[in-house]
Amino acid sequence: MNEMIKTQLNHRTIREFKACKVNQTDLENILNVINRTANSMGMQSFSVIRVTDRDLRKRLSKVTNQEYIIRVPELLIFIVDLYRNNEIAKEMGVEKSFGSDMDRFFQGFSDAILAAQNAINAIEAMDMGAVFFGSILNDPFKVVEILKLPKLTFPALGLGFGVPNQEPQLKPRMDLKLKVFENEYKTFDNYLEEIEEYDKEMKKYYDLRNTKKPLDAFSEQIADRFSKRDDLRANILDYIKEQGFQFK
Amino acid sequence: MNEMIKTQLNHRTIREFKACKVNQTDLENILNVINRTANSMGMQSFSVIRVTDRDLRKRLSKVTNQEYIIRVPELLIFIVDLYRNNEIAKEMGVEKSFGSDMDRFFQGFSDAILAAQNAINAIEAMDMGAVFFGSILNDPFKVVEILKLPKLTFPALGLGFGVPNQEPQLKPRMDLKLKVFENEYKTFDNYLEEIEEYDKEMKKYYDLRNTKKPLDAFSEQIADRFSKRDDLRANILDYIKEQGFQFK
Repeated sequence: MNEMIKTQLNHRTIREFKACKVNQTDLENILNVINRTANSMGMQSFSVIRVTDRDLRKRLSKVTNQEYIIRVPELLIFIVDLYRNNEIAKEMGVEKSFGSDMDRFFQGFSDAILAAQNAINAIEAMDMGAVFFGSILNDPFKVVEILKLPKLTFPALGLGFGVPNQEPQLKPRMDLKLKVFENEYKTFDNYLEEIEEYDKEMKKYYDLRNTKKPLDAFSEQIADRFSKRDDLRANILDYIKEQGFQFK
Repeated sequence: MNEMIKTQLNHRTIREFKACKVNQTDLENILNVINRTANSMGMQSFSVIRVTDRDLRKRLSKVTNQEYIIRVPELLIFIVDLYRNNEIAKEMGVEKSFGSDMDRFFQGFSDAILAAQNAINAIEAMDMGAVFFGSILNDPFKVVEILKLPKLTFPALGLGFGVPNQEPQLKPRMDLKLKVFENEYKTFDNYLEEIEEYDKEMKKYYDLRNTKKPLDAFSEQIADRFSKRDDLRANILDYIKEQGFQFK
């Protein structure tokens, strides 16, 4: 099997890293890969903030509730960026710019996420490990403040990486038959029956963040998460609006 | 340099493919890679529709305005999927499920896009080529209809791939200094000045969809796109709501 496919099939989240820095050439390669990523209409509506300042990292750790964000050797925050292109449009004399429309926002969001995944593939291909911080969306406004993000930008995803200092188990995944369909969406009469095996596998998986007991079954995790609302997170559209995007 | 990095730095969109099919083992590897992709909170809130039916492809080509979507050897549509987990929550007896909150939607959107980029990395690592179809969002509702997507799902991105039958130029990218910042967002006083070289490079780039003349400068492309609204696309939030997601 192709080496890259092997690497991809072996993906696991790494949260603890050796103290050594990521070397400059590797970092440059990763940034160049990011820049080469496919993007919506060629508009490259994303940017990246590399966070090296320890105080800013600490403030981000309060948003994410993940203290290891302070310790990751490298930390990149991928953001939706319509600010830059909107400025270009203004400088070009466009009187009424539609750079703040929500389709533009979603293009930027896609661009940011595509670039983040392309980066993680480069990182893992170089035998480093990485962790995504989706938790920056726990409080998008704090992140806007911490990174001094202008209007028409928005945080999408964080990415920490370096040389792994742990070897987590491969986390079980739900079977593809429940996820990949031909020509039309397929529903199932009884999902709990379909995921019975997967539920069992999950209960054998130990997350290195808590090695005392294995994870709950997938169905239990979902029941737990879906039975409560996180008001701050659920109001994400308010923050997007606050950042200057137009809902109509 | 690492082979994978070379491949990533060499990325270009492929729109014309040899007639041969993608072999079954390669396809399975790609699907397994998709399944192994990092995802939000381990919830895997995405699905994939593999479109093999020619009539459905034709209908999609009307949405995307890209007739080559009919001819791509393989076509995968990545969708946000909260339907599946919401059903699991219901079966688990959760009386009031918050699976339709917008933070869940964005998690699903991220999951779908991460999986799509992971797939394209696998495809290119196996010396195949690919094209993204962001244009399925020209009319999300038509896509919902064509692929029979249930409530709490939403189309995110299409991906066509196969063995390349064209060799496009490497498309110029805006310089990283305008995209990657340290610790805080950096604005520039005069973007047109900053992208002067990039604008020139773009005017030397020939898109194989129209080989008669090179592309416009980047600044001209942006001025053109941002000076008009695409009402259907700009109303994307209405479609998301229509698919059952809650805005509060």
